[in-house]
Amino acid sequence: MIVLGIDPGLANTGYGVVARRDGRLAAFDEGVIATPAGTPVARRLVALHDAIRALLDAHRPDAVALEALYFGRNAQSAFAVGQARGVVLLAAGQAGVECADYTPQEVKGAVCGSGRADKEQVGRMVQALLALPRAPAPDHAADALAVAICHANHAPLAAALAP
Amino acid sequence: MIVLGIDPGLANTGYGVVARRDGRLAAFDEGVIATPAGTPVARRLVALHDAIRALLDAHRPDAVALEALYFGRNAQSAFAVGQARGVVLLAAGQAGVECADYTPQEVKGAVCGSGRADKEQVGRMVQALLALPRAPAPDHAADALAVAICHANHAPLAAALAP
Repeated sequence: MIVLGIDPGLANTGYGVVARRDGRLAAFDEGVIATPAGTPVARRLVALHDAIRALLDAHRPDAVALEALYFGRNAQSAFAVGQARGVVLLAAGQAGVECADYTPQEVKGAVCGSGRADKEQVGRMVQALLALPRAPAPDHAADALAVAICHANHAPLAAALAP
Repeated sequence: MIVLGIDPGLANTGYGVVARRDGRLAAFDEGVIATPAGTPVARRLVALHDAIRALLDAHRPDAVALEALYFGRNAQSAFAVGQARGVVLLAAGQAGVECADYTPQEVKGAVCGSGRADKEQVGRMVQALLALPRAPAPDHAADALAVAICHANHAPLAAALAP
């Protein structure tokens, strides 16, 4: 199973591709899609959409996994992130790839065994689980790998438990 | 000049097409794009994107106009609307059509002459300005026509005032 994890944002969208085979995980790709500040939002979203489609074409994932974000009070930033997330979901839908949402607590629990782990712990565990030579960077790419790991480890269990 | 006004939402997106020629306005089309509840968000966004592209193809507008929404406290609904709005902006960007944002106060001011007008006043003024046989319905379509009128009346002035 191949999972494309995404940490969406208008300026920077993290991505990470994780494969699971025989219970072992491996990272195939990770990075950040940056869109140019100072250009119209519509054009930035076109650039993001093109990049996500290219990732879907290149890796043919079985699923796209995203964090289900819960913004406390900042509706403006929820709105901006929502725009980027809509474009990511659209690209997945157009490619016929299933999307799955996980809360930050689920992601941390899946990677670190605790929903309260901090960023550094998540980075170290992602590095260990994927046998990476160093902790993944930047943060957006690390977060995307973490949510991909969460789905890769959760989906087989969910399938086994399904009635 | 032809303007496609959009009132974005995941469940219901209002649209309205307004043309301005020799200082007179006319409505060419209005309605609501509804996406099926109970289906995955990605698929609903694909349906919305397809519908917006069809409107852009059919009417070849010079601009897409949207309300710049400011949600007071509800980050969850800002997030959901943001997803739909991102898909609308993407479709406009892919078609190379300029997008313009107006605050609710600007829209009401352009249509009613007062930023404090209520929904019913906006509906009556949209009907009068576009010489419609009855007040536009539902609300999402009326709101989309109102923001399209706002841009159609604002853009020539803005162009004349540009340095």
